[in-house]
Amino acid sequence: MAGVLQTYLPFLAANWQLVLMALLAAAVLHLLLERCRTASIPVPAPPAAVAAAAAAATITTAATAATPWRDEVAPEDDDLTPPPDVLLPRVPFSMESISPEEMVRRSEQFYKQMNGRRSVRAFSRAPVPRQAVESAIRAAGTAPSGAHTEPWTFVLVESPEVKAAVRRIVEDEEEVNYRKRMGQKWVDDLAPLGTTWLKEYLTDAPFLILVFRHAYGVDEQGQRFTTYYNEISCNLACGVLLAALHQAGLATLTSTPLNCGPRLRQLLERPANEKLVLLLPVGRPADDCTVPDLTRRPLERIMVVL
Amino acid sequence: MAGVLQTYLPFLAANWQLVLMALLAAAVLHLLLERCRTASIPVPAPPAAVAAAAAAATITTAATAATPWRDEVAPEDDDLTPPPDVLLPRVPFSMESISPEEMVRRSEQFYKQMNGRRSVRAFSRAPVPRQAVESAIRAAGTAPSGAHTEPWTFVLVESPEVKAAVRRIVEDEEEVNYRKRMGQKWVDDLAPLGTTWLKEYLTDAPFLILVFRHAYGVDEQGQRFTTYYNEISCNLACGVLLAALHQAGLATLTSTPLNCGPRLRQLLERPANEKLVLLLPVGRPADDCTVPDLTRRPLERIMVVL
Repeated sequence: MAGVLQTYLPFLAANWQLVLMALLAAAVLHLLLERCRTASIPVPAPPAAVAAAAAAATITTAATAATPWRDEVAPEDDDLTPPPDVLLPRVPFSMESISPEEMVRRSEQFYKQMNGRRSVRAFSRAPVPRQAVESAIRAAGTAPSGAHTEPWTFVLVESPEVKAAVRRIVEDEEEVNYRKRMGQKWVDDLAPLGTTWLKEYLTDAPFLILVFRHAYGVDEQGQRFTTYYNEISCNLACGVLLAALHQAGLATLTSTPLNCGPRLRQLLERPANEKLVLLLPVGRPADDCTVPDLTRRPLERIMVVL
Repeated sequence: MAGVLQTYLPFLAANWQLVLMALLAAAVLHLLLERCRTASIPVPAPPAAVAAAAAAATITTAATAATPWRDEVAPEDDDLTPPPDVLLPRVPFSMESISPEEMVRRSEQFYKQMNGRRSVRAFSRAPVPRQAVESAIRAAGTAPSGAHTEPWTFVLVESPEVKAAVRRIVEDEEEVNYRKRMGQKWVDDLAPLGTTWLKEYLTDAPFLILVFRHAYGVDEQGQRFTTYYNEISCNLACGVLLAALHQAGLATLTSTPLNCGPRLRQLLERPANEKLVLLLPVGRPADDCTVPDLTRRPLERIMVVL
């Protein structure tokens, strides 16, 4: 072996230690750089609007180290009042004062209504009014967000061509799942069920909503700013969106196709700071729609009173 | 330098290349191991109930690499039908069929109602019916979750003693923020505003809801199982909870105190697999309640139609 090396690769034979060292050093550098990339987004001068809360939130950054936009908290504006120079004026706030009995009635009604929601995979092609979907998106936009940065974009897809393009991307990846990631045994298991990587619902549903979270913000001057708590903030908005759509009598499927984020982002021409969170087909359930016979845990299994 | 080395560290002088190589190799190994640690939670035999979906979800694991419980997707049950041996029976599903006009009406009504929600920091001590809060928690429990694992626990705190204990923990940490993490300049800025680390609302509000997500599940036999998508699933449930409480005429503050998760988890005696997501004081706003004069982005700034 050594002889062969000396014969054919004299330089390597003489300097293998240095070469190996260089390779190792490169490896260390690569890993370190990779960690830095995932650990911090460059964030110059945030716009005045969020400067204060951003400043306040640097506490979070300091405290939660690592990734400030990984969410441990989701205040609408930071728990700390921002410094006075950028302090927002405060206005009186009140809510419709309703009786205890009415509180209970409304709360139970909302629960009963929401308890009828299920994830649906078979949609009717019957059109639904876009205005109803738009109001649901408006409702999602009322969710709290870190430093009130509202780090979300809702892409509403109505065009059959775009829906078909979305479906192609999703099915491409799903086919890879079937052919490469699942293994033959499993595919054979699924065969009798007629389950494939096809997702008709992506073209049957009259609307698709693709929710993108802003991993960081970009102001009018193209300056980046940090969107604190953008993950949990955007997820909370998605929760309100699910409630709003169901309230409007619209069915959805809560899903995000695996590994499709970047391709879908490019298809829909969203900027690099936006990351796909959810893909929701929206419409009426198909007449022959079925769902798995699931039950939900009763209150005493999800709540503890102290 | 070389001379000094040869004199005092002859071994190092002779073998510095090997020593350096060893150090570099150790560094690579360390970084690699660290990445693996953050990339997998030990997950022996999941219970039958979720075994299938868990199996299906291993696709996610394989595909999204890194952190399977970091959520990129949130299907109610995985997009792939689980293998037949554990396949749940399917039941017909339909929704109340309402007219397009009614869809629009309900959707706009829900938006108008939700648009009145604000994060509140000044709560009335007036009692509110626990039944209304419980129904809101029930509603939160209807949220979709990965493999339908329902990875959430809602701790409802009514006891004045426990509320006081929660407040002590939160204020302890907040005081550290003020004294250590913020810097004198900032504290001076806040002084004239009378802003301190005190959080009266934690004892004024008639209820506190602390939401814990299950980083992994534990079945009756004490076996761990993976709760896929537990972050986004739990956050979606929190979004529904915020909507439900507001619908019931109850005010909240969407917050999680920094660095208090572990101490609060121990105070409330939650198991190690549960992580604090949100702390929500719940009640009626104080009569003199004020909120920052924020506006929300209009629909055309948060929605793109294709």
